[in-house]
Order: sequence, then structure tokens, then C-alpha cells
Amino acid sequence: MGNAANGQRITIVGAGLAGALLATRLGNAGFEVSVYESRPDPRGKDMVAGRSINLALSARGFHALGQVGLTNRIMELSTPMRGRMMHSVEGHLQFQPYSAHADDVIHSVSRADLNMALIATADEVPNVDFHFDHKCVGTDFDSGVATFVHRSNDSKVESNRGLVIGCDGAYSSVRKKMQRLERFDFSQQYLKHGYKELCIPANIDGTHALEPNALHIWPRQSYMMIALPNLDGSFTCTLFLAFESNSGPAFSKLKNEQNVSAFFEEQFADAKKLMPTLIEEFFENPTSSLVTIRCAPWYHEDKVALLGDAAHAVVPFYGQGANAAFGDCAKLGDLLIEQKNMGKRISTATLSAYFDKRKIHTDALADLAVANFIEMRDHTGSRIFLLKKKLEQTLHRFFPKSFLPLYSMVSFSCIPYRDALDRANRQWRFVRRIALAAAVAIITLIAWFVTLG
Amino acid sequence: MGNAANGQRITIVGAGLAGALLATRLGNAGFEVSVYESRPDPRGKDMVAGRSINLALSARGFHALGQVGLTNRIMELSTPMRGRMMHSVEGHLQFQPYSAHADDVIHSVSRADLNMALIATADEVPNVDFHFDHKCVGTDFDSGVATFVHRSNDSKVESNRGLVIGCDGAYSSVRKKMQRLERFDFSQQYLKHGYKELCIPANIDGTHALEPNALHIWPRQSYMMIALPNLDGSFTCTLFLAFESNSGPAFSKLKNEQNVSAFFEEQFADAKKLMPTLIEEFFENPTSSLVTIRCAPWYHEDKVALLGDAAHAVVPFYGQGANAAFGDCAKLGDLLIEQKNMGKRISTATLSAYFDKRKIHTDALADLAVANFIEMRDHTGSRIFLLKKKLEQTLHRFFPKSFLPLYSMVSFSCIPYRDALDRANRQWRFVRRIALAAAVAIITLIAWFVTLG
Repeated sequence: MGNAANGQRITIVGAGLAGALLATRLGNAGFEVSVYESRPDPRGKDMVAGRSINLALSARGFHALGQVGLTNRIMELSTPMRGRMMHSVEGHLQFQPYSAHADDVIHSVSRADLNMALIATADEVPNVDFHFDHKCVGTDFDSGVATFVHRSNDSKVESNRGLVIGCDGAYSSVRKKMQRLERFDFSQQYLKHGYKELCIPANIDGTHALEPNALHIWPRQSYMMIALPNLDGSFTCTLFLAFESNSGPAFSKLKNEQNVSAFFEEQFADAKKLMPTLIEEFFENPTSSLVTIRCAPWYHEDKVALLGDAAHAVVPFYGQGANAAFGDCAKLGDLLIEQKNMGKRISTATLSAYFDKRKIHTDALADLAVANFIEMRDHTGSRIFLLKKKLEQTLHRFFPKSFLPLYSMVSFSCIPYRDALDRANRQWRFVRRIALAAAVAIITLIAWFVTLG
Repeated sequence: MGNAANGQRITIVGAGLAGALLATRLGNAGFEVSVYESRPDPRGKDMVAGRSINLALSARGFHALGQVGLTNRIMELSTPMRGRMMHSVEGHLQFQPYSAHADDVIHSVSRADLNMALIATADEVPNVDFHFDHKCVGTDFDSGVATFVHRSNDSKVESNRGLVIGCDGAYSSVRKKMQRLERFDFSQQYLKHGYKELCIPANIDGTHALEPNALHIWPRQSYMMIALPNLDGSFTCTLFLAFESNSGPAFSKLKNEQNVSAFFEEQFADAKKLMPTLIEEFFENPTSSLVTIRCAPWYHEDKVALLGDAAHAVVPFYGQGANAAFGDCAKLGDLLIEQKNMGKRISTATLSAYFDKRKIHTDALADLAVANFIEMRDHTGSRIFLLKKKLEQTLHRFFPKSFLPLYSMVSFSCIPYRDALDRANRQWRFVRRIALAAAVAIITLIAWFVTLG
């Protein structure tokens, strides 16, 4: 390919969600794309037995999926969730719709199903090739060449000279190499909480044991459990709990069957009844940590770029990790394709523009995601929170264009995260001022009546 | 030594300022202390020719020095600075005293002189031994054993089993090993500015070419130069300037003799006249970066601890880097010695208490130090800044106990940094409220007079 020789070759490290989607987009646009992935091809038979882990796709994610014509294909794989179903300790249920609009839903989808669909789509593009079982062991920042080792025979392979894009997740090997560059900003911050995935299987008839079109939450102040529906009738539950704690429950205190059973009986009795393999799963599945990763810059000259979790891993509480990674794909894709259509080579300026346009927004998301943990585990059960949600939706109904709840802007629009946050702050400032003015007006009126009297 | 066998052996990695001071303190208290340093003994003859780099010692630093009886010895090595001497572009001078109290001074001291004095003092303590030319190549977090390689003969040495304290600076090898532990928070953030050290030599008669009892500043908004006096009549200058810039001056634009000469002629004409070897120094001396490093926790069980820059490197603009490291020495020393005096072994709780008592304060200092760069390079030249400083000092004169300027609390007291910052914020809030109340009172009075008229 003439274009390829002209500096348009792209190496993508990682065939996860972002890597596979980006490969499709860039391959469709005529770039010659090679994708290297350290794990085996997930489409292999032996992968089917894996645990079902799911995630929530929202507007931003579907915008990027739409760019490669995958909207309907992925919609079919997913279960819409129209709101939060709150489970009290006593087992009382309360449904909180996400929005007054019926179309404002988020979509629960299996990460494995989504990834396989994305890989299959990319694999159909003639100028995209996949290399599974290839672990990245080095990136040359001067030439834009990445080196990989084949997992089974230890043979070394070098990628084509071009742009290397690290889509290799929160513990990115491409980013680790960038950390050795001069003046590279980096931070990793862990929550005191970890998480463990558990399962509520389908009923015998294949139906869901809980309301399927909701994200279920068991908020317990300092911790919580959530459950997202799967297509097969099961739910994937995630318990978020402190690793250690002096005062409250913690993973470190759940040492044996009795501890776990008693804890679930006391806190999640309604769910426990639906979890026949709770104990086995609890001790078999890992307890994972929750990290926020930030770095800058996300590129080195015109040779290397970072994307998705490799550039900005966030905690999962806004359900935006994959959506933000897809947002990166959309933006980087737009910029690279624009350059290509103008007949220009990928330049440092292209990658710098990508970084500048995304960084402030993913930084804002990182903060929003941590803040939403507090909201979900703690406030979703409180009256004031419910009143505020109610007020938000009422204001939105009366002023549909000028008042948009923050959650709606994040989940049901493509307004960049920082802009959404700024707008939400402005809206509340305005509401507070109106309330103050109303209070002053009322007091003035009362004073006037009193004087008259 | 019975105590040593009883888990009281301490390995200090790094014989810099903090390592040497801590060794003295702990050695005096009866701990058996081994200090390993990768560089040669600075007391060797060949070190004399090194560049003179200095730093500012203030109250916190002297508190820790006082704990080992070094106050007078170090005072003799240092030059008091009573305030800032501002140099305008036109060469006009303006002196801004740090405080209304004559005793409130900071002390300029050569880093090399200070380090040699601290090492010499520690070396006199019988149960402290030094191992120079030993580079730390590993730390075993289970046993509390550090491994070193001798620089010249590559032989490996292991430290005694005990507590390993990493005092090995911003690029600490002990911390790098800790970064691989589970859930270790870490961040490194670079400024866009770098720095380069230069020199104003003494007059022929050995006197200072500028006012010796001041910290000289050439504030130029987006960049600045400072100069601190040395005992030998010279000044060490530091130019803080952006590495790259589209709009203003930057290191990247100072490529040759003409660039540098013209830049100094235009911006620092009065200093340039006093810098006969400016051009040679500019191209010989490195351009260094400015980093803020934060991490958590600063310990692993009862086996490893971090101290000073290894735990919390800050940018140099508040002159508090070494003082904060000495503050760590004081606090960790207090806690370890208290344990020892009670006949107890060093425990995880001891190190955890040290971390808890220091972390919030060094975090506050990190922010203060970055903010002070803006103040020094930009505001020190402005009228509003001078008015605010004047107001601060007037308020302090009238309310000496209730209003303490932030700079005074940081530099002339041992009030922990976070407490100092909180108190400064409270003070200004109070002043603003008084001002508002006064304004309301005046308007009311005027309205009353108008009504009467």
C-alpha cells in the first residue's frame, strides 16, 4: 500500500475493547493496522467458560460504535437498564428512573461478548491483522517500533515502523516505558475499597431472578453491592468493600464460610437467597483493587500514543470507563482520518491535539467516578438525595433545554465530561440564587403586609 | 549490643542531609545505625571543586538540628537573609523584609558544607557506621534487609536485619521497590519550568557584590532568577525558566552565546555585569527539572520507611525541602526513641503513626511550594502583592498573637504546614468579614445622615 509506506502504518498494542474498535475505524479509513494482544484469541472455544463480567454502555460509547456501524449489533447483545433498583437491608425495593425520558437508558453488556464482536468486526477489515499471544516487551520511541514475544515459542517479532498506540489497559506496558521519559507526569491512586464479582444465576426457566431492566444497588453507606443483568438471565454482582477496616466490615474480616454467610445474611438477605454458589465464588474469585491512573502527555512525538485505560484508568462507579475509552477512539480516529484525507502524515501536532482535547475531560471523569461511589453507596438510600434527584427531574421537565441533570449529561449525551460538570455546577448555582431571591421576595412581602397591618 | 539484637538495628539508605541527621539522632539514642551511600565520602579532597549549591534553613530545620546540638555549628556556616531584595528590569532595588521581627530570618547555607558537617557529626557517634560508594540494589520487604553493591569492586553487601529507612532522595531506589507493592499510591508531577544554577563571584576583596543579607529575586512574571549568598562572598543564582514556550522565553530558545547574552542583557542587566563566566556556566551546567513527588504509605510493616525527598519531593520555591526532611527526622526520631525508652521494639504502629502525623503536612507543603512560585516570579513585583504584604505585617503588629502571616508560620515557626495553611485561610476569612462589616456600617451611617438631611 502506497499510503502505508508513507508513514500511515499503525501498531495497536492490546485487542481489548478500545484496541479492537480503533482498529476497525482506522482500518476502514485505509490505514494499515496491526493489532498485537498478549492473550489468546477470545473467540477460541476454551474462553467460553470464563466468568461473565459486564459493563454499562451509554451514549458516548454508542457514538463511537456508530462510527463503525455497530450500533444495532451491540444493542442486540445488551440489556437496557432504565434506572436504579435500590435494595434496603430489609429487602424493600425502590425504583429510581435515570430520566424522565423513556429513551434515556444505559445498556448492560457482557465484556467478553462485546470484545468478541469488536474483534470479529475488525478482523473482517482487509487491512487489519491480528496477532494474538504476542506480549509487548518493548517500544522504541525513536523509530515507532514495538517488540513482541510469542507466548508459546518465545520468538521475537517487531512491528512495522509507524505509530504505536498503547491500548493495553491500566497496567499498560507502553505507558510503563513512557514513564522513563523525561518529565512524564504520572499518578496511581488506589481506593481503600476492593471488589469481588459474584453471580445471581437465571431462574430454571431462563428468566431473570430480579427486575432485568434495572441496575440493582444494595447501598450500605461504607460499602455496597450492585448487580447488572446478562442476556442469559443471570446477573453479575459486584461487592465493593474496604480491604481493611477498624470499625466496619472488610474483606480482611471475611475469612471463612461462616463470616461470609453471616455477612450476606445480615446485609444482602434478599440477594443471598438467589446466590446458590455464593461461598464457592467468594473464595474462588479474586479480590481486585480499584485504581485511578492519570498521566501526561499521552504521546511521544509522532511515534507513540496512549488510549483508554492506558492513559486514564478510572474507578467504575460512573459506568464510564469503556465509554471514555471509546470516546478516545472517536477523537483520535477523527483527527488521524482528517490528516489522512488531507494527504498529510501523522504528526506530533495531531497527537498533541488529541491529548489536549481529551485530557481535561478524562481528568474530570476520574473525579466524577470517585464522587459517584460516595453517592451510590451512601446517598442513594437517603431522603435528601432522593429529593435532590426529584428536584433535578422536575427542573428538567419545566426547563428541558436549560436544566440537564449531571447524570443525564454524562450518560445520555456526548457533552464532554468537563463541560458537563461545569454546566451542572452553573445550573445549581443558578437554582440557589433563584431560591435565595424567592426567599428575599417572600420576606419582603411579609414585611410589607405586616407594615400595612 | 543487646538492644541491637533485639530488633533495634537500623539501616539508612543515603547519607544526604536527612540520612546523616537521622543517623546522629538515632545513634545518640542507642540504636545501632548503618548508613549506606552510593556516592563517595564528600569529605574527600576531590569534592571541593564542586559547584556551590545552597539552600535556606528555617525554624523547622533548626529545631531538628537543635535535637543533636548542632544549632550553633550550622549557624556559623550560614548567612542570614532578612528579606527579599527585588530587582526590576531597570535594575531598581526594593527590599521587602520577611517580618517585622529582627530575629525572623532564614539562613542561606551551602548544601555541601551542611552535608559534610552532618556526616562528620554522625561519624563521631560510636554506634553509627558509614559505608560510602555502596549503591542500593535491592530491599527485601519481608526481612528488612537491603542489598548494596560496592561501586569499584562490584562486591555485594547485605545490611543487618532490621528497619530500612530510605533517605535516598526524589528518585529513591527504596521507594521504587515499594511502588511494586499492592495498592501503593504514587504520583510524580513536573513543572513546565526547569532550572539552571549560575554564579555571581565575590568581589576581589572577598566581599559580596550584592547585599549579602537578602534573598535576591529578579521576578519576570513567567520566569525568574534568584540568588542566595554564600559565606565566601559569592552568590549562587538559579534561573527558573520554561523548558519550551510558544510565547515567552524558554531554555529551548537559548541555544547559543548570542541568545543567552542578549536575554540576560535585556532581563537581568544588573546581574549580568557581575557574572563574568555566565556563558561558560550556562552551557556547562545542566538544566534540571522540577518535580513534586507524593506517595502513600511511607512504610511497609515494621521493615521499611521512607523519609524526606524519597517520601515527598517538593519544588524549591518555599525553601522548605530540606526543612521538611529534617521535620521528618525529628518526628520519626521522637517516635522511635519513645518506643525504645519504653523497652518496646519498633512496630508497624510506630511507622504508621509517623506517616499519619507527617503526610497531610507534607501534602500541604507540596501545594504551598508550587503556589509560591507564582507568587515569587509574578506577584512579588506587583502593587497589590506589596499592599497585601503590608496589610499582613500591620495586622500582625496590632494583633501579634492572633494574626500570623503564612510566610512567618511556615518559615519562623514549627506549626505543622497544614495547620499553618488552615490558620492563614481562617485569618483572611476573618479579615474579609471585618472589612465587609465595616463597609456595611459606613453605608448605614451615610444613609442615616442622608435621611437626617
